[in-house]
Amino acid sequence: MSQNSAGPEILRLIELISRLPGLGPRSARRVALFLLKRRDTLLKPLADALAEAGEKIERCKVCGNFDTVQPCAVCQAGGREDALVCVVEDVPDLWALERGGAFRGRYHVLGGVLSAIDGITPDDLNIPSLVTRVEAGGIREVILALNATVDGQTTAHYVAELLEGKGVSVTRLAHGVPVGGELDHLDDGTLAAALRSRRDI
Amino acid sequence: MSQNSAGPEILRLIELISRLPGLGPRSARRVALFLLKRRDTLLKPLADALAEAGEKIERCKVCGNFDTVQPCAVCQAGGREDALVCVVEDVPDLWALERGGAFRGRYHVLGGVLSAIDGITPDDLNIPSLVTRVEAGGIREVILALNATVDGQTTAHYVAELLEGKGVSVTRLAHGVPVGGELDHLDDGTLAAALRSRRDI
Repeated sequence: MSQNSAGPEILRLIELISRLPGLGPRSARRVALFLLKRRDTLLKPLADALAEAGEKIERCKVCGNFDTVQPCAVCQAGGREDALVCVVEDVPDLWALERGGAFRGRYHVLGGVLSAIDGITPDDLNIPSLVTRVEAGGIREVILALNATVDGQTTAHYVAELLEGKGVSVTRLAHGVPVGGELDHLDDGTLAAALRSRRDI
Repeated sequence: MSQNSAGPEILRLIELISRLPGLGPRSARRVALFLLKRRDTLLKPLADALAEAGEKIERCKVCGNFDTVQPCAVCQAGGREDALVCVVEDVPDLWALERGGAFRGRYHVLGGVLSAIDGITPDDLNIPSLVTRVEAGGIREVILALNATVDGQTTAHYVAELLEGKGVSVTRLAHGVPVGGELDHLDDGTLAAALRSRRDI
C-alpha cells in the first residue's frame, strides 16, 4: 500500500487485525473500515472492552480458565462436585461443556495439547498443576475430555500414564454416533467405535 | 452460554467481535481466546490502536477518505493533478487504486452506492459534495471508478446525469479481460464487452 493512501494509524490497525485467526490482509481492511464507519457504536466499545479484558481477565491459578476473579467463577461455584475433574484442551471446550450443562464437576484446562511438530512439551501445558491437584487429594475421577485428534489422544494417554497409581480413576469421553447424526456421513473409525460400544435398548 | 462459564467481560468482548463482518459467534469466541492468550503482544496493542483510531481518524471533508489530517494526505499531496477526480464507492477502492499507483489525480469517496433495497438515497452518499466540488471549477474530468455491479452502475449513471452540462467530461473504467485472466473463467458479459472494445495490436 502506498504511503499516501492510508495513514500510519490505519495501517497499524489493519496490520494488527490481520494477525487474528481467520483474517487475511483483505478481510482485515474490510473489518478496519467497518469499524471506522461505526466509531461510536462498535469501534469505541470494542476498544474499551479489549482494554478492560487486558486489565482484568487472567488465567485461573487453579484450573487455567480465563476469568476476572481468582480462582475463577467455575472453581468457586457451589453445588459442584469437587471429586470429579474434567480435563479439557482449552477454554472453548470448557464453554462447550458448560453450554450443554451435563457436567457439574470441576475443570482443568491444559491450554493446548502435546505436539512434537509445534514443540509443545508437558511443561508448556498445565499438566504439572494437574498432577499437583490430584496429589493434593479429594479427587475421585479425572475425565479426559480431549479432542479426538492424534495430538489430543497422545496427550490423553500421556496424562493417563502420569496419573497411574495416584488413586484416581481416569476415564475418557465415549466415541459414537453424534445425536442427530447420519451414519452415511460418519467416518469408518467412528462407526466401528459405535459398533464396539453398542448398548441394549 | 451459562452464566458460570464465562464472565460478563468475556461475553461482552465476544459479542462485540461477533458483530464484525465475516465473523460468527464461533469464530468470535476463537478470536477472543486468541487475543486473551496474547495479552501483551496483540490484545493491548489492538486496544490502543482502536482507541487511537477512534480519537484521530475522521472522514476528509473534501473527498470522504479516512485520515488523521484534514483534508486527508491524498488531497494535500503535491504532484497530483487537481483537474482529474476519480469517484470511488468506498475507501478500500481508493486504497486499491493507490496500491496500483496508476492514478495520480484526486479522489472522491461516495461512501457507498445507491440502493433501493437498502434505502440508500443520494443524500446518504457524498454525492451533493461532488456536485459542489465540480461546480467550484478547476475539474476537467470525472472518472467513475465504481464497481461493475447493478447498484454500482446505477449510481454511475445517476452521477453522470447529475454532472451533465457542468463542463466536465465524465468517463468510466474500461471493461475487459483482467490481465493474467483466462477466457474460460470469464462471464459472457465481460467477454462480449472485451470483444466490442477490441484494439489493434
